[in-house]
Amino acid sequence: MTHPKKGQPLLVVGTVAIDSVETPFGKADEVLGGSATYFSVASSFFTDVRLVAVVGEDFPERHVDVFKKHKVDIRGLQKLKGETFRWRGSYGYDLNTANTLETKLNILTEFDPVLTDEQKNTPFVFLANIDPDLQIKVIKQLKNPGFVALDSMNLWIKIKKDSLLKAMGMVDMVIVNEGEARELTGQSNLVKAAKEIRKFGAKGVIIKQGEYGSLGLFNDEIFSAPAYPLEDVFDPTGAGDSFAGGVMGYLARQGKVTRDSLRQAMIVGAAVASYNVEAFSLERLTSLEFHNIVDRYNEIKRLTVFDDFTH
Amino acid sequence: MTHPKKGQPLLVVGTVAIDSVETPFGKADEVLGGSATYFSVASSFFTDVRLVAVVGEDFPERHVDVFKKHKVDIRGLQKLKGETFRWRGSYGYDLNTANTLETKLNILTEFDPVLTDEQKNTPFVFLANIDPDLQIKVIKQLKNPGFVALDSMNLWIKIKKDSLLKAMGMVDMVIVNEGEARELTGQSNLVKAAKEIRKFGAKGVIIKQGEYGSLGLFNDEIFSAPAYPLEDVFDPTGAGDSFAGGVMGYLARQGKVTRDSLRQAMIVGAAVASYNVEAFSLERLTSLEFHNIVDRYNEIKRLTVFDDFTH
Repeated sequence: MTHPKKGQPLLVVGTVAIDSVETPFGKADEVLGGSATYFSVASSFFTDVRLVAVVGEDFPERHVDVFKKHKVDIRGLQKLKGETFRWRGSYGYDLNTANTLETKLNILTEFDPVLTDEQKNTPFVFLANIDPDLQIKVIKQLKNPGFVALDSMNLWIKIKKDSLLKAMGMVDMVIVNEGEARELTGQSNLVKAAKEIRKFGAKGVIIKQGEYGSLGLFNDEIFSAPAYPLEDVFDPTGAGDSFAGGVMGYLARQGKVTRDSLRQAMIVGAAVASYNVEAFSLERLTSLEFHNIVDRYNEIKRLTVFDDFTH
Repeated sequence: MTHPKKGQPLLVVGTVAIDSVETPFGKADEVLGGSATYFSVASSFFTDVRLVAVVGEDFPERHVDVFKKHKVDIRGLQKLKGETFRWRGSYGYDLNTANTLETKLNILTEFDPVLTDEQKNTPFVFLANIDPDLQIKVIKQLKNPGFVALDSMNLWIKIKKDSLLKAMGMVDMVIVNEGEARELTGQSNLVKAAKEIRKFGAKGVIIKQGEYGSLGLFNDEIFSAPAYPLEDVFDPTGAGDSFAGGVMGYLARQGKVTRDSLRQAMIVGAAVASYNVEAFSLERLTSLEFHNIVDRYNEIKRLTVFDDFTH
């Protein structure tokens, strides 16, 4: 990762976890995981990233080293007495949906994100999947943020929908997957679902469609972004968070959010996510180089470009 | 439909049916349907189309008029003693999958496609979804065909897989939907599935992904084609056949099958299919004008184009 970071700093608040994952292709125990982990490493290729999260005393130094290697600012990574948040899940041959086998919140229940002045003044902010009440708490501490986005998950739609809708009304962009978009709005059509989500307050919506790409709605314009058609998906864990990391990292690097930079950012997200799923945990992301991301971006372009209609 | 047809003639052999369809948005009884029907009307915007199919004595003149209006050559539309093939189906809010409520083959069991010399010498040929033994029978009659493609359905994978694989080995391109591709190959990954299907013999494979677009594999090159992100899908019946009609009609119009014309053709297919699902039966296709298709093609381009990576 010799490529220089550029642009505006990016703050992420979310979970850092220890995952145990089983897929049809193998299993990995006690590996690094969590929404803010995937996000921060993915976005670290582009800009300076400030991480705010919590771990327990059991969190191994080798996992901390991953953030250090990627020059993620971990001054906001609190270490508290207790055990780190743990997730155990599995995937069948349909790698689009994770089966959660066990969730141990552990120290996460004590997470109380209090930002430093520097963190409060970060121009780009991402609220990774976490309790929406904590997301709101973070938003309220921000000082003149330039661009704030959030992600969530079906659990919060089920048990904290009011808080989640409130949080969605306080940010610039909502990033959710298609199942969540349908659950949130009761709309099976994704264009309609995106428009409904925008009514909650955010001017931008990105709906992640897994292997099919993503759909963006900004102002009144739709962007249909392809995914990279991967032949070998090994472990989809973190695909959504690394997608979001690519999107927000690229936007922060450009320092501006426009129709065109958002479109590019969604392709960058697809490129980063496509690497992430090639190996367990962050194995592939941590061996990635900046030029690999650019190569895959160009490859996605090559795979999707077509000429004008010939009469 | 005042736009002039151009290029090479296109032959289609398949079913002409009378459909009864129920969707969450309404129902339509005894309307025009069938794989060769949707295909021939869709492709008729681009080139001269020769239809070979069978109907019963009960087939109403108003349905015949649809073909006439689109200047489809119906000299190959046999009318036999008996009742026309009937299909009754329904869709839930997930409009991606049809529930077949009733299939009455009727006169279809007596269909014996014997081609005229003119039909045998058609340069572009599409074998729409029909018994693969009939598809083989048609292929064997062709004289120096330029480009032959076929479609099929899950029924034939189940009850006539050997014949279907044989037919697939005799054509240039196979067009199937993603469920069929997975069923045919046992591969959940669509890039792998497309590569497996190509091993049956065809050099080109298009996998239709419904609202998500389509994936093309030609020689060793992949093309990931978006769909038009429609807000209001009314009746998906015939979407796959009108997609194929757009693809083959455009290729025949260009008179050549190249990397670039195939990519364009898949976008044309997406454009035509997106119109088709806006109304029951062929209501929308029959009111369509050539420039509407070009407009939607341009719209798909606008919705999917993105700039090069900015460093």
